[in-house]
Amino acid sequence: MLGECLENVRKKHLLIHSITNYVTANDVANCILASGAKVIMADAEEEVEEITALSAGLCLNLGTLQKSKISSMKLAGLKAKSLQHPVLLDPVGVGGSLLRTNTALDIMHEIHPDVIRGNISEIKALFLGRENVSGVDVNQMDCVCEESLSACVLFIKRCASAYGGIIVASGAIDLVSDGDVCYVIHNGKKEMGCVTGTGCQLSGLMTAFVASNMNHMLESVAAAVCTMGIAGEIGYQHLAPFEGNATYRNRIIDAIYHMDKTILEGKAKYEIR
Amino acid sequence: MLGECLENVRKKHLLIHSITNYVTANDVANCILASGAKVIMADAEEEVEEITALSAGLCLNLGTLQKSKISSMKLAGLKAKSLQHPVLLDPVGVGGSLLRTNTALDIMHEIHPDVIRGNISEIKALFLGRENVSGVDVNQMDCVCEESLSACVLFIKRCASAYGGIIVASGAIDLVSDGDVCYVIHNGKKEMGCVTGTGCQLSGLMTAFVASNMNHMLESVAAAVCTMGIAGEIGYQHLAPFEGNATYRNRIIDAIYHMDKTILEGKAKYEIR
Amino acid sequence: MLGECLENVRKKHLLIHSITNYVTANDVANCILASGAKVIMADAEEEVEEITALSAGLCLNLGTLQKSKISSMKLAGLKAKSLQHPVLLDPVGVGGSLLRTNTALDIMHEIHPDVIRGNISEIKALFLGRENVSGVDVNQMDCVCEESLSACVLFIKRCASAYGGIIVASGAIDLVSDGDVCYVIHNGKKEMGCVTGTGCQLSGLMTAFVASNMNHMLESVAAAVCTMGIAGEIGYQHLAPFEGNATYRNRIIDAIYHMDKTILEGKAKYEIR
Repeated sequence: MLGECLENVRKKHLLIHSITNYVTANDVANCILASGAKVIMADAEEEVEEITALSAGLCLNLGTLQKSKISSMKLAGLKAKSLQHPVLLDPVGVGGSLLRTNTALDIMHEIHPDVIRGNISEIKALFLGRENVSGVDVNQMDCVCEESLSACVLFIKRCASAYGGIIVASGAIDLVSDGDVCYVIHNGKKEMGCVTGTGCQLSGLMTAFVASNMNHMLESVAAAVCTMGIAGEIGYQHLAPFEGNATYRNRIIDAIYHMDKTILEGKAKYEIR
Repeated sequence: MLGECLENVRKKHLLIHSITNYVTANDVANCILASGAKVIMADAEEEVEEITALSAGLCLNLGTLQKSKISSMKLAGLKAKSLQHPVLLDPVGVGGSLLRTNTALDIMHEIHPDVIRGNISEIKALFLGRENVSGVDVNQMDCVCEESLSACVLFIKRCASAYGGIIVASGAIDLVSDGDVCYVIHNGKKEMGCVTGTGCQLSGLMTAFVASNMNHMLESVAAAVCTMGIAGEIGYQHLAPFEGNATYRNRIIDAIYHMDKTILEGKAKYEIR
Repeated sequence: MLGECLENVRKKHLLIHSITNYVTANDVANCILASGAKVIMADAEEEVEEITALSAGLCLNLGTLQKSKISSMKLAGLKAKSLQHPVLLDPVGVGGSLLRTNTALDIMHEIHPDVIRGNISEIKALFLGRENVSGVDVNQMDCVCEESLSACVLFIKRCASAYGGIIVASGAIDLVSDGDVCYVIHNGKKEMGCVTGTGCQLSGLMTAFVASNMNHMLESVAAAVCTMGIAGEIGYQHLAPFEGNATYRNRIIDAIYHMDKTILEGKAKYEIR
């Protein structure tokens, strides 16, 4: 199933509309191109609805947020929803400022993105305090690791259930849940954290996967997470001793470019809880 | 002649003012530096005229267009024209939104850039419907390939003639025309399409070539196209089997960095129709 | 001492707030991550004070300046100062437009950054004409090289003394002064000038060094300059003959990633005047 999700991305060659930050935009674009999908980045209020209408999926990323971008995100989001395009929210830095927190919560309320992907702190910033989600000990959940895994799985399931959509918490272990089940994914390398924008790239890639697999959203989200994590593993193997995070950045995207069904299914390490 | 154009870029070391999108700005800058020219990116209304006055050529790129950038582009464009600096327009995504289409047409009308460079769809979006340009079967012109070549050459010649400037349509085959003749250029690799911003880079590079060869504009535009295409061929040869589009991005710019008259003239594949 | 400064960056793992240009933002982020510090880029007026409060140092870079960013820089700068966070100003392109010159001078006046880093032309644009700084022959100071070294050292010392902060003039030879002494640093390669944003990267890196070594600001600034220069030397050695400025960009950051006390202290070439 995971491999089929990737093959659909390559076969359908869909256009993804990305409203994103200027720090990692280039890598996000190359990451989406590496998957076989196409990408357009456009964030002017005057054109986002037209651009979204040409596209098959929308990725909203809150990095380097600006007030003018917020209305663009909402306009594009409403248009995408009206066309049954999948929408993904990457709440970069949410919890770090009121602007980001309020924008993320507004988008969740007004657009209801199909998928929300962040690290565990960002997901906590969005959901803690909400009813139906509390009742787990959040203090042990600073990161998703073996010690905190059970608590985190429960928390992410409850978030997804309360929200009514797919929630992804990225970290040393990645969690993907629709409220019923939770993929616990063990791919990836900790050194990916030294490359700026691997999270943004994953969100872009995930939007391409979801748009290309609308009947299997949850599986396609898990497939995108596995693809990124495996690319991190393969890319790391190809690093020479003197190569560091800048070359690693390229190697990860290169590995996505060469990913196929066999590699993906052979190397994916996950369980469903 | 092509080689001489490149040598002039390296010798004159001119400053190019680029008003461009945030997705590919870094690669455009490194591409221009690789050619031996210098680059400054500045898009604030308050300063673009001063920056253009310090420069020798202006490149206007419509990617990630914002309303505030439009007036900056016009101010810079008028200043550049008043100083006899060459101006190039890259109408990224024109046809995809009214904002981009209207902006491109306004700039053509108010600034009259010396060179317009886009893919065949973008050129069609700008020129179809105009008198003197119609009369060719545009349905077969989705891409510039062997089957559609005669029709495309005729179309681009008519566009250039009607416009009164140089028109470049990039694709599997690249076309460069001033209305009288048309360079048909066969360099490049289809894999360049998997690297975001190769078109933007070509536009930046082309501005450096034109500014450095003001008495041979048409030849310098063709030389820039050949340089980029050959760099794509050389860069591709240097890719290891595990390297993909992210490393390819670097290899193309690296090959421009090492391009010289001998390589350029030895590998250029073009005919003049 | 230089090596200890680097070790503090790696050990303290501080968050740096960078308000910067969109051309080189990605490389600046990866450069800061390579040093062991963390980075957040945020420039919206509504959130910069909160983001700065979460951070340990602030880097203000005037590239692709926009009016809306100026108030953000001032708000963040005042907040950083009120929290005793170090602030660095990189006056990119100052002298090239009134907007940049006035903004740099305003920031110097209103925020008084602890460190100002630019090339010699930028430093001249900021300080010439000021009392206590004149009296040196500036015509021979187009670049910092052996011929102009004595004049440049005197000039930078006087700038730093008149300003009451640390001034860094980057070039073939780098100068770092607090008004009393001047580090004259001979690391680096001239080919770094063909990579866009090495100056911006150095400013980001330097902010991480200063924030991690608040009791040894001058030494930490010199350590950052040596780190960048040595990384340029090591990265250059690893280039294959066909690799150019794009790969070099990655190799420099890679070398920072692998830099340690032994390499830094073994390869640093400087004298104190």
